[in-house]
Order: sequence, then C-alpha cells, then structure tokens
Amino acid sequence: MVLMRQEIGDVLRDFRLQKGRTLRQVAGEASVALGYLSEVERGQKEASSEILAAVADALDTPLSVIMGEVSERLAVVEGLSLPMPTRVPDTIPAELVSGYAAELVS
Amino acid sequence: MVLMRQEIGDVLRDFRLQKGRTLRQVAGEASVALGYLSEVERGQKEASSEILAAVADALDTPLSVIMGEVSERLAVVEGLSLPMPTRVPDTIPAELVSGYAAELVS
Repeated sequence: MVLMRQEIGDVLRDFRLQKGRTLRQVAGEASVALGYLSEVERGQKEASSEILAAVADALDTPLSVIMGEVSERLAVVEGLSLPMPTRVPDTIPAELVSGYAAELVS
Repeated sequence: MVLMRQEIGDVLRDFRLQKGRTLRQVAGEASVALGYLSEVERGQKEASSEILAAVADALDTPLSVIMGEVSERLAVVEGLSLPMPTRVPDTIPAELVSGYAAELVS
C-alpha cells in the first residue's frame, strides 16, 4: 500500500534541505514542535492540513507545488511514471546503462 | 489559509460522482464508515494515509492521479493558475467575456 504521509515527509525534507534550512528553523517559523516535524518528515505522523499549510509557508513554497511533487513521486511508486533524473551525467558508464535496461525488462 | 482536506474532499467526491458511485458503495468497498467518508468528502475530517489509499483503490483511481488533481486545485486557490474550463461553448455571450475580462483587470 502506497502511503501518502511517507511521500509528503520525503518532499518536505527535500524542499527544506534544498533551501538550506534546519529542522529547528522551519519548526520555529511554522510554530510546530521540532520532534513532531521530524516525525512528519520521516513519514511517522500524519500532518494535519493546518500544519501542512504552516510548514509550506515556512518553506516559502506553495502547497500546490509540494503536493504536485508528492503526486509525481506517488506516480513513480505506483509504476505510472519513471523517476526524473536530477542531473544528466556527461557520460554514462556502460554497466549502469545495461543495469537500468535490465531492470526495465525484468 | 488553504486547507488541503477541503480540496481532497472535493476531489474524492468529484471522482466518485464521475464514476456514478454512491457514498455507501465506496465506503463499503474501502471498509470505511459511511459517516466518516461523508465527513472526509465535506472537508470536515482529515483522512489518514491508509484510508486515502483504500478510498482511491475503491474508486479505481491511482492516488497519484487524485493528488495531482488536488495539487491543480490548490494552485487555483493559491492564485497560481486559472481553473480549466470543463467545456468550451460554441459561442460565448459577449457579456460573459467582458465580465471575465473585467475580473482579470480588477
């Protein structure tokens, strides 16, 4: 079963790290307990809609952007799309290509 | 404050009606109390990740598709995109065009 809180947690953590913010900073700005936000990021707690809105606000990121990213990752988990590479290397080692191709046909 | 449970509720109801299913049918298939699902659809209760997954399953709709629609509606509420028209009329009454144009510049 695909659990949304796991994807939400991953996305919140990724956006936070991308912006170079600490858990403490974001929790403080969102008026959320640090331990609670940490559990949300690890997919162990469901965030209420109010807390999600406050954390999105603290991350200066619209909730629609966060949930768009969650939707895309859910699609990958559900096998509806392939993950987007975050960067394209100049050269791809042959063994990686064949390994990936092997995964696709297995 | 934009509340995600409101958008999730609206989307779940719209998908259900689009498929011509009753609350009772979907609640039964998802093993969720009818009153609870009704409150989720009205944005009055937060659905846990497990319940969301079960309801998506009962609606034969991937969770990624549901959350993609939620993200798009959040973007409209957040003023990041305009709502998509569900159909384009053959002719648009002039007073509607000017009304819409007036809204855009106000």
